[in-house]
Amino acid sequence: MARLSTCPPLTRDSVIEAYQLVAPHVHRTPVVTCDTLDEQVSIPRSVAERACTRRTPRIRLYFKLENAQRTGSFKVRGAFHAVKRLMLEDRDLIGVLTHSSGNHAQALALVARDFGLDAHIVMPANSLPRKIAATRSYGADVVFSGSTSDERQAVAARVEAETGARLVPPYDHPDIILGQGTMGLEFQDQVAELMEGTGDGLDDGLDAIMTPCGGGGMLSGVALSCQDTGILVFGAEPSFQGADDARRGYYSGSRVTAVSSLTVADGLRTPLGEHPWAIIHDRRLVSGMYSVSEADILAAMRLLFEHTKLVVEPSACVGLAVALFNEDFRDMVARTAGNREWHLGLVLSGGNVGLDSLGAMFAQS
Amino acid sequence: MARLSTCPPLTRDSVIEAYQLVAPHVHRTPVVTCDTLDEQVSIPRSVAERACTRRTPRIRLYFKLENAQRTGSFKVRGAFHAVKRLMLEDRDLIGVLTHSSGNHAQALALVARDFGLDAHIVMPANSLPRKIAATRSYGADVVFSGSTSDERQAVAARVEAETGARLVPPYDHPDIILGQGTMGLEFQDQVAELMEGTGDGLDDGLDAIMTPCGGGGMLSGVALSCQDTGILVFGAEPSFQGADDARRGYYSGSRVTAVSSLTVADGLRTPLGEHPWAIIHDRRLVSGMYSVSEADILAAMRLLFEHTKLVVEPSACVGLAVALFNEDFRDMVARTAGNREWHLGLVLSGGNVGLDSLGAMFAQS
Repeated sequence: MARLSTCPPLTRDSVIEAYQLVAPHVHRTPVVTCDTLDEQVSIPRSVAERACTRRTPRIRLYFKLENAQRTGSFKVRGAFHAVKRLMLEDRDLIGVLTHSSGNHAQALALVARDFGLDAHIVMPANSLPRKIAATRSYGADVVFSGSTSDERQAVAARVEAETGARLVPPYDHPDIILGQGTMGLEFQDQVAELMEGTGDGLDDGLDAIMTPCGGGGMLSGVALSCQDTGILVFGAEPSFQGADDARRGYYSGSRVTAVSSLTVADGLRTPLGEHPWAIIHDRRLVSGMYSVSEADILAAMRLLFEHTKLVVEPSACVGLAVALFNEDFRDMVARTAGNREWHLGLVLSGGNVGLDSLGAMFAQS
Repeated sequence: MARLSTCPPLTRDSVIEAYQLVAPHVHRTPVVTCDTLDEQVSIPRSVAERACTRRTPRIRLYFKLENAQRTGSFKVRGAFHAVKRLMLEDRDLIGVLTHSSGNHAQALALVARDFGLDAHIVMPANSLPRKIAATRSYGADVVFSGSTSDERQAVAARVEAETGARLVPPYDHPDIILGQGTMGLEFQDQVAELMEGTGDGLDDGLDAIMTPCGGGGMLSGVALSCQDTGILVFGAEPSFQGADDARRGYYSGSRVTAVSSLTVADGLRTPLGEHPWAIIHDRRLVSGMYSVSEADILAAMRLLFEHTKLVVEPSACVGLAVALFNEDFRDMVARTAGNREWHLGLVLSGGNVGLDSLGAMFAQS
C-alpha cells in the first residue's frame, strides 16, 4: 500500500478528492425505494411496540444498490482508489497482492485487470469453488494457503518477495477507507435529487445512513463522507458468536481485536481495523452501533428478495434487519424523529451469494 | 370486461392512448444493461458456432425490469387499463373478478384496492400458500374452486351472479393487450434515451424486442407498440411438454387451443388467446417464435441472478435463454445484423418466485 505518511488526511474533503480518482472506474449505482418495506418498517414490529410501551418510528428507506456495483460489491471503490494511489507513488508497479477469499479478492482482481497489472490472490485451499472461479475469471493468479491467518500471511509474504507485488489490504488503510467513502457522497447526492423530484420543499436529504460493519472500511469511509453534513451514521453487525465486535468495542471503549464467528453474514466475520476504529470510535463520527440475530438477517434478506426483487448477500441485509427488528434502534429513531418521517439510507453492500447457498440458508430457516 | 364493440382499434395509437390511462398508476420500470451478459451472448455458444459452420451474432442486450413493477410483474399494466375502461363504461362498478392463481390475480387485486373496488379472485384450493397470501395481502376476496378449468369457471360464474362484479380475464381481451403494450412504448423511449447518452450517432434505438409468450397478451401488446417503427418483435416459449403452442401454431398456421405442460416457466403454461393470435399470426406483427428447454431457462435464470443481481421468475428468463441458446434465433440475428451489433430488448416480465422454490429448482438442475 501507499506509505501512510503520504496518505491524505481522513476528512470529507479527501473523500471528495478520492471520488475524482474512483468515479471513472465504478458504477454510480442506483438508489431505490420500496413502499412495501416502508410500510413494514413503520408499523409496530415488536411486542413492546405493539403494547404501546414504545413508540413506532416512521421511516422512509433509501437503498443504495452496491450489489449492482462492478464485481457485485462496494469493494471495488476502495481497491480502485488504493491501487491508483499506489500507481502514482510507484510508476514501475507491476502487480498487487492480497489475501482474501471474499469480495475484496474479486475487486482487486478486476482493478488489476483494468490497469494491466498482475494480481496475486492468496486464498485458503478450502475456499468455495465459486469464489475461486470468480476471482480467476478476472485473470488473477490464485495462490492457495492454509486457512489460519498466520498461514495466509506467510504465503502472502512469500508471494510479495518473489513477485514484487504490493499488498492491498481489504480495509485497514486510509486509501481503502477514502475509496469506500465515495459511495456515501453519491448516496447523499442521489437522495437529494430524488427528493427534489417530489417537490416537497420540507425535506432536505437523508437523516441518517446505516451500513454493515465488518472490518469497518465502508462504515468509517461513509462516516467521513457525512462529516459536518448533519447526517447521522450508524453501523450494523450480526450478533452471532460475538460477531458484534465493533459494537462491543464501541460501547466499552476498547477495540475488540479478534473474532471467531461463523455468522451467515460471511463478509462481517472480521474484527474492526485500527484505522476504522479511530474514525468510528475515537472521533465519534459514528453515532451508534447495533446488532441483530441470524434469524433477523435472513428475514430481512427474504423481504428484500420478495419485495425489491434484488439479490443481496446476507452481509448486505444487516442494516435493514436492524431497522426492522432492533428495538433499541427503533426506539432511538422514534425519539430522534418524533412525529416526523425519518429518511434512512441503507447500503446494500453486495450481491455475491450463490443460488445453491441461498437454497441451503432458507431450507434451514 | 368492457364490451368488445366499444374497444379501441388494435393499433399503436391506441397503445399510446392506453398509456395516458395507465401511466399514473404503474412504475416506469428501469432499463438496464450488463456487460458480462453481452459478452456471453456474443461468443460462440453452440457446437455449430464453435465449429464456424454458423456465424456468431454480436448482440447488445437491454433488459426491461418489469420484475420491479408493482406486484412484481407487468400484469398490472393490462389490469389497470382494463379496469379503468370498465369504470368509464360503468359508473356504478363495485367489483371485479378473475380466476387465476398467478400474477394477474395479484395485479387485479392491487388495481381494485387502488380504486376502492371489491376484488374476487377464484383460485384452485391447491394453490401455493405464498400466492394465496400475496393476493389476500392486497385485500382481495379469495374464493376457492376445484383445479380444472370447468370448475374454476363455474365458481367464477356464481361469484359474478352473486356480487355483480365484472370479469377481467388475464390476456384474451383488447383492453388487456393495449395495457400490456404500454411497456413496449416505455422500452423504446428508454433505450433511445440511453443511446443518446453514449453520443454514438450511428445508433437509433432497438433493433428488436423479444418477450415471453404465454397467453400472448404481452407479446401482442408489445407488437402493437412497435407497429411501423421498424423494430422487430419475437416471442419466446418453453418447449417442455408442448408449452411452445404459440410457436407451433405460428408456423403451422393453426392456433393450438389446449396446452398441458408443467414447465418451470409457470406463467407460460397457457395456450395463446384468440385476440393475441390475430395480432401475432394473422397480422404478422410478430416476426418469429422460438422455444428453449427447461435446462436453458434455468441456465439463463442463473446467469441473470449472478450477473445482474436480479430476482426473476423462470417465465421471465425464456427470452434470454433464446438469445443465448437457440441456434435458429442466433443464426437469424447473425444473418440480419451482419457485422453490426444488434440491439435486442428483453422483457424481464416478473420476479415472483419464492425463495423455497428457487432452492428446489436449482437443487434439481
